[in-house]
Amino acid sequence: MLRRLLALALLATASGARPVLLRTATDDASAAVSSGAAQSDALFCDSWMLSVETGNAGPWISVPTRCLDSVHSYMEGDRYASDSDVVALDSIAFAAQALATAQEGNAKPAWVFDIDETLLCNDPYYAANLSRLQNFNETSFDEWVDEAKAPALSSSLKLYNELLDLGFHIILLTGRSEFQRNATEVNLKFAGYHSWEKLILRQTSDIGKPAVQYKSERRAAMEAEGFKILGNSGDQWSDLLGSPMATRSFKLPNPMYFIS
Amino acid sequence: MLRRLLALALLATASGARPVLLRTATDDASAAVSSGAAQSDALFCDSWMLSVETGNAGPWISVPTRCLDSVHSYMEGDRYASDSDVVALDSIAFAAQALATAQEGNAKPAWVFDIDETLLCNDPYYAANLSRLQNFNETSFDEWVDEAKAPALSSSLKLYNELLDLGFHIILLTGRSEFQRNATEVNLKFAGYHSWEKLILRQTSDIGKPAVQYKSERRAAMEAEGFKILGNSGDQWSDLLGSPMATRSFKLPNPMYFIS
Repeated sequence: MLRRLLALALLATASGARPVLLRTATDDASAAVSSGAAQSDALFCDSWMLSVETGNAGPWISVPTRCLDSVHSYMEGDRYASDSDVVALDSIAFAAQALATAQEGNAKPAWVFDIDETLLCNDPYYAANLSRLQNFNETSFDEWVDEAKAPALSSSLKLYNELLDLGFHIILLTGRSEFQRNATEVNLKFAGYHSWEKLILRQTSDIGKPAVQYKSERRAAMEAEGFKILGNSGDQWSDLLGSPMATRSFKLPNPMYFIS
Repeated sequence: MLRRLLALALLATASGARPVLLRTATDDASAAVSSGAAQSDALFCDSWMLSVETGNAGPWISVPTRCLDSVHSYMEGDRYASDSDVVALDSIAFAAQALATAQEGNAKPAWVFDIDETLLCNDPYYAANLSRLQNFNETSFDEWVDEAKAPALSSSLKLYNELLDLGFHIILLTGRSEFQRNATEVNLKFAGYHSWEKLILRQTSDIGKPAVQYKSERRAAMEAEGFKILGNSGDQWSDLLGSPMATRSFKLPNPMYFIS
């Protein structure tokens, strides 16, 4: 169950509701652009995607209508692959160095990965019907999860293999629910991920928790178990922020949806 | 004095030294790209610039040689202006809402701005000689500061005026040094910034402090004086991170240099 949003928690029910469609701040703001040269959709949407990646956009509900084509082009073209490649390269450059300097004590060096849009790529699901970017359908998405056919994000697969070779303990921490464990494991293996220390999914007691809270609690538990979380890879800031944080956090691109 | 790097503080002297040129992790990483289609410089450099904006790149010393043209094109073309516009629009959308909900108690609503590449734009200095992007010359940069002719980043000027209209207390917090106060004030007024609550520059006792420490200490002092820092705008993550943080922080683009 992929919980979308809402920082405006009032709009979220306890069980991972389908979000209410609202005008986003960015929609409001873009409508207000008046000075200077009129921005083309492509130019505006490139800037909007950057604002999503830096977190400047804050909570947002759905891809602005004028940006649907840009997001689709981004995901299908060279940029998504290239941007993801550079994240993986940054991650590896850090990992090798961090491991060399983190060998004091008995802490087990760990790397935490999110799954959707981090290890696995759901672009085929969204690309098949762009309206899914604006009207999230939990039933339909859960059916896609059950198919267990999401491909790997290839740069993340390469990173995962390099981290395994370096001796990292790989911990998968996903917003998916426990009932999706089997489909998730099947999909991970289908995509080329063959081993991990733990696969942590939302339990019944986690329902309704914002992702930052749920994931921070689980990172705290990892530390209590003796893991030293050197790196954390996720496509949402809510995968990465909160206490405790990894020594370094790596934000993978995702202009398709926002999870609070 | 614009202090460049280094998170590797060992390489920085106490007085804001000119950084040692090193191969950056990104240079190493880009050299290691071997799988898949060879990335063109333009594609790689777009991804590198994104990695800088998200913080994925970590500490870096200078623009990779293969990206000098891309950075120059970015700064001189439509994207820098557009990206900055969207940051300002995100900021305003938040500011109006935050002010409406933050009126409890007697805290004075404040917005903190960095100066270089936030309120003022030093692109004319760097564009005049691209080698300045790779070989920072403090003497030459200080002469540019003394000229006091840096233009406003126009989107930030618009944001500044809107925040003043909304009743925010504007606090300027810069890595420039106290001896540059007069030139800085002259330049701010030249660029259209006419009033502020405080202009905080580095004192002698701040020399050698990483920007995160210096700026966090000053934000803590603002809170102790009764300001509630709702927003913070800066082009470096070191303007924004550290405790206390603003309610929302806004990262302006800067692919030209990194300050730890």
